[in-house]
Amino acid sequence: MRNLTLLTDLYELTMMNGYLESGMAEREAVFDLFFRKTEYIDFALVAGLEQAIDYIKNLNFSEDDIKYLKSLNLFGPKFFERIKDFKFTGDIYAMREGEIAFPSEPILTVKATLFEAQLIESALLNIINHQTLIATKTMKITQETKGGVAEFGLRRAQGPDAGIYGSRASIIGGCKSTSNVLAGKMFNIPVSGTHAHSWVMSFKNEIDAFRAYAKLYPKACILLVDTYDTLGSGVPNAIAVFKELREKGYEPIGIRIDSGDLAYLTKAARKQLDDAGFKNAKIFASGDIDEEIIMSLKSQQAKIDSWGIGTKLITGHPVSALGGVYKLVAIEEDGVLMPKIKISDTLEKMTLPGFKTVYRIYSEGKAAADLISLREEKFDTSKPLTIFHPVETWKQKTFDSYEMRELLVPVFIKGEQVYKVPALEQTVKYAQKGIDEFWEEYLRMHNPHIYKVDHSDGLYDLRKKLLYASKK
Amino acid sequence: MRNLTLLTDLYELTMMNGYLESGMAEREAVFDLFFRKTEYIDFALVAGLEQAIDYIKNLNFSEDDIKYLKSLNLFGPKFFERIKDFKFTGDIYAMREGEIAFPSEPILTVKATLFEAQLIESALLNIINHQTLIATKTMKITQETKGGVAEFGLRRAQGPDAGIYGSRASIIGGCKSTSNVLAGKMFNIPVSGTHAHSWVMSFKNEIDAFRAYAKLYPKACILLVDTYDTLGSGVPNAIAVFKELREKGYEPIGIRIDSGDLAYLTKAARKQLDDAGFKNAKIFASGDIDEEIIMSLKSQQAKIDSWGIGTKLITGHPVSALGGVYKLVAIEEDGVLMPKIKISDTLEKMTLPGFKTVYRIYSEGKAAADLISLREEKFDTSKPLTIFHPVETWKQKTFDSYEMRELLVPVFIKGEQVYKVPALEQTVKYAQKGIDEFWEEYLRMHNPHIYKVDHSDGLYDLRKKLLYASKK
Repeated sequence: MRNLTLLTDLYELTMMNGYLESGMAEREAVFDLFFRKTEYIDFALVAGLEQAIDYIKNLNFSEDDIKYLKSLNLFGPKFFERIKDFKFTGDIYAMREGEIAFPSEPILTVKATLFEAQLIESALLNIINHQTLIATKTMKITQETKGGVAEFGLRRAQGPDAGIYGSRASIIGGCKSTSNVLAGKMFNIPVSGTHAHSWVMSFKNEIDAFRAYAKLYPKACILLVDTYDTLGSGVPNAIAVFKELREKGYEPIGIRIDSGDLAYLTKAARKQLDDAGFKNAKIFASGDIDEEIIMSLKSQQAKIDSWGIGTKLITGHPVSALGGVYKLVAIEEDGVLMPKIKISDTLEKMTLPGFKTVYRIYSEGKAAADLISLREEKFDTSKPLTIFHPVETWKQKTFDSYEMRELLVPVFIKGEQVYKVPALEQTVKYAQKGIDEFWEEYLRMHNPHIYKVDHSDGLYDLRKKLLYASKK
Repeated sequence: MRNLTLLTDLYELTMMNGYLESGMAEREAVFDLFFRKTEYIDFALVAGLEQAIDYIKNLNFSEDDIKYLKSLNLFGPKFFERIKDFKFTGDIYAMREGEIAFPSEPILTVKATLFEAQLIESALLNIINHQTLIATKTMKITQETKGGVAEFGLRRAQGPDAGIYGSRASIIGGCKSTSNVLAGKMFNIPVSGTHAHSWVMSFKNEIDAFRAYAKLYPKACILLVDTYDTLGSGVPNAIAVFKELREKGYEPIGIRIDSGDLAYLTKAARKQLDDAGFKNAKIFASGDIDEEIIMSLKSQQAKIDSWGIGTKLITGHPVSALGGVYKLVAIEEDGVLMPKIKISDTLEKMTLPGFKTVYRIYSEGKAAADLISLREEKFDTSKPLTIFHPVETWKQKTFDSYEMRELLVPVFIKGEQVYKVPALEQTVKYAQKGIDEFWEEYLRMHNPHIYKVDHSDGLYDLRKKLLYASKK
């Protein structure tokens, strides 16, 4: 485990030093981590909590770290005294990995001393922003393919961690396997991959390369057919080798096409394979694919059974960052936790004050709305519940028969981990179950139906009060 | 140092196993790492070599790795025998970090056994693609700002490494500092940062927060003025505190604005500061900035002295991946290194065969063209040199008086590192010097003038020969 304690922005440390010098460092504060709606991000599939927990548990300033910080001449003796034997002692509540989250909902809430809560801002954002982006992007892709996606992005990922943890997040998002062997080892993910163009080019000719591969992996024979001429040599050579394989008692798995016009090539290759008696041979497509291209290929009846997706999945393209933020929502003043608001030009961009939680409301077995409430508010599901739009308050909905599920669960309480991280396979199932709870219109790729994320009476009143007070 | 030996795609390992089983594993092969032109990438500022070298030097399969690989049931006994005590024993040539590279030029060339060269493909691409993308993006930004950029992207980077190594690459690209403390420590980069909105919100009111900050850092006082109302309270409160600071004998550094209409706000804030007698106070701008926005702000005469740039710099947005590839260009056959070509639809997409190098041709002190040649070709700069367009061969240019500089330098020879990695400050200077060698039209943001990257006679003839041979 690397020591990531210094993986923070300098201003976190200068503020921590300032809080100490101002006698405010040990005041309790509450910060919410959430994202805002963007053109591409209407919802997110949460991921990264396991690594966030590891980060928190491993926080400690090494002697080397302290020596470096001293060299900056920015921090006083109180600061170095305080970070000696540092340990996170606060509370963290978070959505489980695999949860569907909507803009403005706290994905993670930290309740800790101002000193501790400030230190962990940058790394928590880094970890959760990254994995949630990739899980969300993958979900968009796998919703289009309806399964059968292998993550192939290591070489285009933004550094080793982006490859490793991006691979992990892609599994939560619905990928079935990864090409990344280290990620496979670390997270027990199925690994997949066959051969590259270089394999074909290393032999005197294509059929020799195919024959050698088939001999090597007769039970797992997938041949890459686009090194020279997909339809002119690649598929015919593959068919010749498949026939030899069948004579030896093995059925080939199929072919992979990595370039060219995938709609045309896969249809023509399908016909060649079918005509040669290989109706069960699968066609794998790869090369610069994302959910838009998948939709286009499907609309053209491309004959693709499985997908290998790299660059655009592992980088989240076209988005590149989820844009999650970490905002102060309450701070202890004279022994009382006081809600805080950050003012902005538009109501949507103002923060939601106070120590809060999030509920998902279910009606007739499906997710019907989310409700952000103050943590102290209680709900009696035996009585009808009326929710209303946080800005256009005349838009109301009343549920008579409904269930509520709290989305934030305790992860650390007084610095002790109280949440058991499930195995990745469990998280994958949890994600799929969570997705299935939504009518698919809410999670579709383009212009999804707007899912209601409303504010409780308590939150609505508090926010209004703080807004008016700020105008004084 | 983490063990990244398994940071590779599974197909590299299945091919390595196949090469062993086919008796080809120890044949010498040459692979080129290069990128292709895309809409946004006309050139690149190379970065990542230091981490690529570290990766190569630290290659070794741990017992744990071997146990995992055995569990996959894909590899034979020869494979495990070969990877025991594995060490890279080949040659690597590469462009120095900070070099300007153009599409199709080898940034890095590996000459090694097929077995070894295949293993390192994925990680080399991952490392070089990432850092080169970020250095290039940063260069585009700093070319617009003409200096004064701080890298602020950690929280939006795609995982810890993307923050850490992205920060390093941003320094090569011209950033002056980073907010990322761990990157500062690891690479001896200046760190910068002051305070966040949460600092202001933690105090009873804005002026108390400013006063506390000024007291703490009187010599480095930069105040963030957009928490509540930039022009209505933020700048007036900052001015009040600046006056108090000046009475104590300190000059403030300035203010930071992180949101809102930066063109309008910075002009109005400038006037408020000037009118109050703080003409030397600087204005720092941050918040969703990139080179396009900088150009727009400059055209509106926004009053910005320095820039803090996060998301779009640290993710390379809108590109997200450089798209570098690693292609086989030669392989030993019957004891002779035979050039290889990968055929594609368009001539530009065909690979450049053979073991090659790259020269930069200088005329009148400026870079005039690059020439990709076979490594065995020699050039006599006392004689005129005629170069021609690789496709439109009638486009020719003759240099009478010129100099040539080889861009690829030996990094590993027979597995031994022969290249001394310069300190990062040296690389920063090297990059700036290299950029200054170009007429600025070649490196401008939009539609840069096309810089000539031509092929030597030897390369041109070889490629033609292989193309015609492939049609047989």
